[in-house]
Amino acid sequence: MAQRIVLGLEYDGRAFCGWQTQPGGCAVQDHLEAALAAVHGTPVQTITAGRTDAGVHALAQVVHFDALHDRPTSAWVRGVNAHLPAAMAVLWAKDVDPAFNARTAALSRQYRYMLLNHAVRPALLHGRVGWLHGSLDLEGMRQAATLLVGRHDFSAFRSAECQAKTPVRELHQASVTRAGNYLVFDFRANAFLHHQVRNMVGALAWVGLRRRGPEWVGEVLASRDRRQGAATFAADGLYLAGVEYADQWGLPPFDKRLPLVDTP
Amino acid sequence: MAQRIVLGLEYDGRAFCGWQTQPGGCAVQDHLEAALAAVHGTPVQTITAGRTDAGVHALAQVVHFDALHDRPTSAWVRGVNAHLPAAMAVLWAKDVDPAFNARTAALSRQYRYMLLNHAVRPALLHGRVGWLHGSLDLEGMRQAATLLVGRHDFSAFRSAECQAKTPVRELHQASVTRAGNYLVFDFRANAFLHHQVRNMVGALAWVGLRRRGPEWVGEVLASRDRRQGAATFAADGLYLAGVEYADQWGLPPFDKRLPLVDTP
Repeated sequence: MAQRIVLGLEYDGRAFCGWQTQPGGCAVQDHLEAALAAVHGTPVQTITAGRTDAGVHALAQVVHFDALHDRPTSAWVRGVNAHLPAAMAVLWAKDVDPAFNARTAALSRQYRYMLLNHAVRPALLHGRVGWLHGSLDLEGMRQAATLLVGRHDFSAFRSAECQAKTPVRELHQASVTRAGNYLVFDFRANAFLHHQVRNMVGALAWVGLRRRGPEWVGEVLASRDRRQGAATFAADGLYLAGVEYADQWGLPPFDKRLPLVDTP
Repeated sequence: MAQRIVLGLEYDGRAFCGWQTQPGGCAVQDHLEAALAAVHGTPVQTITAGRTDAGVHALAQVVHFDALHDRPTSAWVRGVNAHLPAAMAVLWAKDVDPAFNARTAALSRQYRYMLLNHAVRPALLHGRVGWLHGSLDLEGMRQAATLLVGRHDFSAFRSAECQAKTPVRELHQASVTRAGNYLVFDFRANAFLHHQVRNMVGALAWVGLRRRGPEWVGEVLASRDRRQGAATFAADGLYLAGVEYADQWGLPPFDKRLPLVDTP
């Protein structure tokens, strides 16, 4: 009798070639499935809430799989962590109703982008924050961000490799906050297209630098043409910060383990 | 006519084998002097405020050297940064009175230790924060920390390899603060012995875990015997957070570029 298990996961995206399994075994999924198999005894297949790209970090990734062999919850946390690389950890595990699916049951995904706004590039947080030099028009960026909120065809912010069936997404939140030398971008949507967050941050950065006015972001959106937008921003500062599920599944909350600024 | 230059430096200690020059060229000093030489045209020798160990990070390292050839300040910042590895950056540079010496003019050094207090080891911040699992007696740690403040013989917190002439140091500050899932230790002293901060954090951690009472830290100090103390804590969470100089030198302030919690 299989038991469906759901896991909360944190990782440093720089150490892996993205979420999705690769022949070389360099993906987050590869390392996780190998560690789960070591504890489970036989191979395990995982389904994730968000297939993060290479270099993209996770504060709060959610994954499910079906265990054929009974193991205590501590085995899925401490036992699996003993088999994982240092840049990756299971934060919690829970038995869940077999109707739960980490991908299809997700009501929304939340991404955060951390941008160092300073004359000198990051060194201590190299690979963990993006970088933009110069005085920024925060109010303009905020105005532009509000133009992205809502149900839209986001083709203008979609990478050419995106495999989604439809370019329509509902963006619930797009906010920009200053925290000292950092700008913090928070986006929440039912789902995101490939490179959508990095392309939105790129466009907002152009507004910040006053290369374009805030209304230009609305024009890019309406064009549905990727060529109208700005360059894709680096993966460095991008974090999967949360996945929302209905209360009925009873998933545990994520602890705040990134002391950057309060996670949403 | 030589010009003395002072630099402010940030680095990720994991990428280097400590401050001090090594035959293999893996040290912070090796990379810095190579980059300075590339800009300067001929070799340059640097003197630092704090010879950090392997794995120890710097938010605010201060270094001086003598330039024989005239270069604009921007060359010592942007020019040198173009030659440095990604895990290291010059934050500012300034012409300074030739009487200034980054080591001997330092009035005090400030170190910060970031400790994740959570059931699961760090993953995203692996190598950048220490880790301690379990409920901690914060008040006990605070009481114990106050016993370290003052002018003392710190032999009990000194590594066997320490080359200082005297084990007497004046500790101005020793504080412990909780910030979410983190404990933040801040120490300021005229100078520190080798491994002194990591040994003090190790002893405070034992008090936190209730293995010893707060007064035990005073007993360890009074014993002047390293064998009476706790294990040396990992370098992972240790940051050189500030160096204090007299106002007469006119050094620029460090910007807060680590968004962990407010740097002191």
